[in-house]
Amino acid sequence: MAESPGTFERAKRLPPEERRRHLVETALGVFAANGYAGTELTDVAAAAGVGRPLIYHYFEGGKEDLYVAVLELAWRELIDRLEVDPERGRGMLASNLPAYLDLVESGDPAIAVIRGSRRLEGARITAATRESGLMLARGIAVNQLGLDDPSPRVLAALLGFLALFEALLEEWRAGRIERADVETLVSDVLPAIADAASG
Amino acid sequence: MAESPGTFERAKRLPPEERRRHLVETALGVFAANGYAGTELTDVAAAAGVGRPLIYHYFEGGKEDLYVAVLELAWRELIDRLEVDPERGRGMLASNLPAYLDLVESGDPAIAVIRGSRRLEGARITAATRESGLMLARGIAVNQLGLDDPSPRVLAALLGFLALFEALLEEWRAGRIERADVETLVSDVLPAIADAASG
Repeated sequence: MAESPGTFERAKRLPPEERRRHLVETALGVFAANGYAGTELTDVAAAAGVGRPLIYHYFEGGKEDLYVAVLELAWRELIDRLEVDPERGRGMLASNLPAYLDLVESGDPAIAVIRGSRRLEGARITAATRESGLMLARGIAVNQLGLDDPSPRVLAALLGFLALFEALLEEWRAGRIERADVETLVSDVLPAIADAASG
Repeated sequence: MAESPGTFERAKRLPPEERRRHLVETALGVFAANGYAGTELTDVAAAAGVGRPLIYHYFEGGKEDLYVAVLELAWRELIDRLEVDPERGRGMLASNLPAYLDLVESGDPAIAVIRGSRRLEGARITAATRESGLMLARGIAVNQLGLDDPSPRVLAALLGFLALFEALLEEWRAGRIERADVETLVSDVLPAIADAASG
């Protein structure tokens, strides 16, 4: 898409931090819709109303750099929406699980990016995915086990639970099981995994 | 690598089925060592002592076609090494789990390819990975639940178990938990998942 001078003027008016955030937020929608392999920086630039060089100004490594920032934003958005409450403990699953499944069902862009990131190679993306998964695992450790400082064994088991959960989501979205199957399986299996990990 | 006429002669002497199998077996080692992205068909051709065009003769779609054949071989090799026995049922985990962990620890090429395939995009590769995972899930359904014809819900739960298992292997291989943690977690969690799925 050719840039009009007006577009360029608009791009210049935002302060750097705001411009960067706008780029990441815009890119989240583009990556969610097209996947990593299907996204070109030109598409992101067009959607953000800026030139491609401006993306490289903020993300020197280009697409991978931008994607890591998008993945971090997606995880922050997800974790902000889930509740962690040591007082209510295991009861949190009853509210967090349906909330998460609603987001999956509505095609939420942050969830689409997070789910897609499991299928990507590359050391930086893999590391970013694991770090973010750990944040969620720590939240589950608080809710399920009342643990503020879970052991590597507990964290490994909860990362395993998240991988299991994703496999169930894939079967559900492909129409092979029902949403109710996901809900009952998770409600039965998560406490068993948490108990096995802490035992 | 330049081909000598001798190499070409040797290549010509194998019957087609044997030549194809030799290419897939050789490619298994190359993909295991270098990963999907790091493998060039030229490397496979050199390792097999044939010219690159011969690979296209057997695998018209090139690298992706060859990889799908490699993945199928890797899964067949794995499943041949595991035991399914409805008579012994849950007792099979005690022999199959250490056998599998030994293969992971020894850097077995089939296991390396199978584990790496989880991180790849692409409809054909994803479909091949799921189909093969289903074969293993069916074996577990027989051993753990005595079910010859498991429901989609049971299969989904067991695919979930395999994803959890892979996450535990990653934590183990990265040195964050011990092999004994993997063994005890799996021994506790698999029966719980199997029970939840069939309940």
